[in-house]
Amino acid sequence: MNVLTVALAERSYPILIGPGLLEDAALLSRHVPAGDVLLVSNTTVAPLYAGRLKQGLGDRRIVEAILPDGESYKTMDTFTRLLDVPMANRLARDCVVVALGGGVVGDMAGFAAACYQRGVTFVQVPTTLLAQVDSSVGGKTGVNHPGGKNMIGAFHQPVAVIADTDTLSTLPPRELRAGLAEVIKYGLIHDAAFFDWLEVNIDHLLAGNAAALTHAIRRSCEIKAAIVGRDERESGERALLNLGHTFGHAIESAAGYGTWLHGEAVGAGMLMAAGMSRELGNLSDADLARVRALLHRANLPLSAPGISPSTALEYMKMDKKVQSGRIRLVLMKRIGQAYVTPDYPAAALQATLEAYFG
Amino acid sequence: MNVLTVALAERSYPILIGPGLLEDAALLSRHVPAGDVLLVSNTTVAPLYAGRLKQGLGDRRIVEAILPDGESYKTMDTFTRLLDVPMANRLARDCVVVALGGGVVGDMAGFAAACYQRGVTFVQVPTTLLAQVDSSVGGKTGVNHPGGKNMIGAFHQPVAVIADTDTLSTLPPRELRAGLAEVIKYGLIHDAAFFDWLEVNIDHLLAGNAAALTHAIRRSCEIKAAIVGRDERESGERALLNLGHTFGHAIESAAGYGTWLHGEAVGAGMLMAAGMSRELGNLSDADLARVRALLHRANLPLSAPGISPSTALEYMKMDKKVQSGRIRLVLMKRIGQAYVTPDYPAAALQATLEAYFG
Repeated sequence: MNVLTVALAERSYPILIGPGLLEDAALLSRHVPAGDVLLVSNTTVAPLYAGRLKQGLGDRRIVEAILPDGESYKTMDTFTRLLDVPMANRLARDCVVVALGGGVVGDMAGFAAACYQRGVTFVQVPTTLLAQVDSSVGGKTGVNHPGGKNMIGAFHQPVAVIADTDTLSTLPPRELRAGLAEVIKYGLIHDAAFFDWLEVNIDHLLAGNAAALTHAIRRSCEIKAAIVGRDERESGERALLNLGHTFGHAIESAAGYGTWLHGEAVGAGMLMAAGMSRELGNLSDADLARVRALLHRANLPLSAPGISPSTALEYMKMDKKVQSGRIRLVLMKRIGQAYVTPDYPAAALQATLEAYFG
Repeated sequence: MNVLTVALAERSYPILIGPGLLEDAALLSRHVPAGDVLLVSNTTVAPLYAGRLKQGLGDRRIVEAILPDGESYKTMDTFTRLLDVPMANRLARDCVVVALGGGVVGDMAGFAAACYQRGVTFVQVPTTLLAQVDSSVGGKTGVNHPGGKNMIGAFHQPVAVIADTDTLSTLPPRELRAGLAEVIKYGLIHDAAFFDWLEVNIDHLLAGNAAALTHAIRRSCEIKAAIVGRDERESGERALLNLGHTFGHAIESAAGYGTWLHGEAVGAGMLMAAGMSRELGNLSDADLARVRALLHRANLPLSAPGISPSTALEYMKMDKKVQSGRIRLVLMKRIGQAYVTPDYPAAALQATLEAYFG
């Protein structure tokens, strides 16, 4: 088992990565604080893993909230109904919310933990690659609004992230690919050597090779944990983790939540950011080709043909990184180094939108 | 003008108390940060004061969200619709939410500020006595759930509280009385001399005497600011501010939100806490009589005859102060000194419920 730490002073917490963690009652009792549990999962994941987790959680009261599966249910309406469950079961402020599932489950359970009785303890048990490498770490929680992705939410850190890599064995291939987009992101923003490693190992990852996946998860979490430790509330560096996300969120919102998987949209969005970085003279043709090739080998979409450039731009204007009316973009200086900027020629953004949308 | 400070390190903020503040453009521009404003008010307060405030806010974009008036609208449903307003108007994360109104407006606007784009800047402009002495200070925000009061929410501090005492001139007498309950609370929990002063000045306060009201607001805010500065998240001392609230919340929830005003329920709840403190031998008969007499002179209800003791107990079990299955109660050692305890004979609570409910 790998153990990493998100260093946030008295709110620091561990990320545990390895096989068999859901069966490890001793580990679970160490990392899931005592108390009644609100177990939040969805209709796909609960039948596979809720029984195992409940057994591991031992002799305590466990109340389940099973959500419908998919990004289209990550709404205020589902959130409101989710909160009815601890109320109906009279869970007190000393309860623990445990999220068992992917990014949607984790985001909604975390937001519920942030708001129930103004905040209760939260534990993430991510079961998708995307959640294990990205969304379960760092405390961003929330729901979508029809007008924009993740527009309503809270920062609420978990007290532990327990990533049982065995759960990836039941992950549909499309979800695995979507998760790989976020893995590739860490190489692009921060670690050229990791990007090189991904070029060598992408087929192993796609084939579900456990050793390769574990390495990818650990390295991704290391990079994310370090950045979150330095900038929890995204006043600076943390925005780099949004490479591809301003484009990607526009895709997800415009297409209708759930049409694209989040990771798919981020994959296409990263190629757009790379293309625009090439347009601005930061990235060489050769590096742009490498980015495209790796995303292509991961079977991720490379453009968003069904959405017009102007529609995409409208949604991008609702991005949370907008400041003083300017869309701040995460772009690349080179593979392994990203930067955030509000300063770029409007024509470069327009050219990028026209190249990849419509 | 009186200026107090809530001392929370880099999140410290001023409480400004005095007449004519809504007309003071210089003051408003100093304390409401630059940026687009989401002005949240209700259908009663907006026609009276929104124009004045908007003029004072000067030349900037102001988007209004006018809520229906009353505790019965402090719901997830209203909250969801409130969030549609900044989305429809594309307000960015650098906007400022300004709450103009009483406790319901402040609680809902603050919760919206906490959750919109995971948190934006917030300013409180309380226009009721209750909001000026209590709910606008300290960062508690949220909405009610049918099963319990304020069960869904967040801690989100404002950057300023601007209490224009002129607004009290239009406050209905019943609302003034409800606000006085929270004023009396500060005397009971922390300041026997202030309680003495209230006994002398209660008629001036009820008559709307500006000097008396200003003194009462300043002293109340001083006590609250000091307690919040020492215990922002209610891990200890802050719970004292809930004197009367566990009983009171049960009254509000059981009667149906909006039937009782919050301050009315707190008034009756404080008498129950005093009665139970007498039952436990802490409070003398004479002191209990003083508490009852002052609440009576303030024209506040002294019991909750329409609700059965068992119903009240059921709602009290959902209180946020419940820990390990025990209802922690705020009781009095004497006038001017409250304490929190999970340890009391069940019979004493039962006797209290039977004396004041049913």
